[in-house]
Amino acid sequence: MNFLEEKIITDGIIKAGNLLKVDNFLNHQIDIDIIRQIAYELKRRFRGETINKILTIEASGIAIATMVGHLYDVPVVFAKKSQTTNSTDDKYMAEAYSFTHQRHNQVFVSRPYLSDTDRVLIVDDFLADGQACMALINLVHQAGGEVVGIGIAIEKGQQPGGDLLRSEGYHLESIAIIDSMDDETQSIRFRSEYN
Amino acid sequence: MNFLEEKIITDGIIKAGNLLKVDNFLNHQIDIDIIRQIAYELKRRFRGETINKILTIEASGIAIATMVGHLYDVPVVFAKKSQTTNSTDDKYMAEAYSFTHQRHNQVFVSRPYLSDTDRVLIVDDFLADGQACMALINLVHQAGGEVVGIGIAIEKGQQPGGDLLRSEGYHLESIAIIDSMDDETQSIRFRSEYN
Repeated sequence: MNFLEEKIITDGIIKAGNLLKVDNFLNHQIDIDIIRQIAYELKRRFRGETINKILTIEASGIAIATMVGHLYDVPVVFAKKSQTTNSTDDKYMAEAYSFTHQRHNQVFVSRPYLSDTDRVLIVDDFLADGQACMALINLVHQAGGEVVGIGIAIEKGQQPGGDLLRSEGYHLESIAIIDSMDDETQSIRFRSEYN
Repeated sequence: MNFLEEKIITDGIIKAGNLLKVDNFLNHQIDIDIIRQIAYELKRRFRGETINKILTIEASGIAIATMVGHLYDVPVVFAKKSQTTNSTDDKYMAEAYSFTHQRHNQVFVSRPYLSDTDRVLIVDDFLADGQACMALINLVHQAGGEVVGIGIAIEKGQQPGGDLLRSEGYHLESIAIIDSMDDETQSIRFRSEYN
């Protein structure tokens, strides 16, 4: 069991409806040791790759992205969310359906911050249905840039995002992949346990 | 002129209506060198203080807060915004009026993440009317904690937030304080220039 799986076991709370609450170390209170270790582990997994930009989406991806950007010493861009479609003249824009909030979000990055020379590592705290991630990929491609990889802290393996991204050939690295969890017994099964 | 004032001069864009756009290094694209230097400078200015938690507000405060938390090696908490008033049983909640969006936001932190043993450094990218900052102070006080200081990247000195916080006795440190700016001539006057 790796450091993040262990942290999920000790500090995560499983809620009904396949929800995992990691508020106390990842997306409300941030355990700086864990964030640092996530960043180092992602850098290790993408060893040898040339990366000149980190891309994430507000808000909870920003902490991990900042620490990864610090290690790579490259700029970090966070895509913004908007519920309305504004003028797209000055921005790259994509749509992401949020299953959590059951609504379509517009996701955008201002044009100067993505370009055709960019070799981008996309990072986020969670991967579930992959909608946010696909929107970020779309933004990089609109700019003519390359998605070198996708680095995720926690992947919900029962949801289709991970399989979708892998089947499309993306280099996806998730530090913890949850294959099943049970809120009654508060038990979690990680994919790594089968390996 | 310090590093941040210089960066604002070279990369900031002044827009009509007293707006300063620093999208390309602070709150959309993040220049990791600048964020690092902001964090080191804030730590220097609060030298000698015991701080065990960093508090900010989503989204654009998170990058600076993460880097400051990394330097202090303490947890980072980011308050969340909500436009609706939900149950407050499990959270500390305060109201912040946003002049930018002309609406009242509820700002909250889940109860376990602030306590009466906390000595908190509040950090944010901008200080203008001080509404967000006052809401964060309110949350710390609800929990019985102490606000050791407030560290800001850019203070808009013509707006009342800074004076209000100083007059109430808070130790406020803003790395760049803008006393006036002119969108037609793209000129900025910093408070440090008078010292």
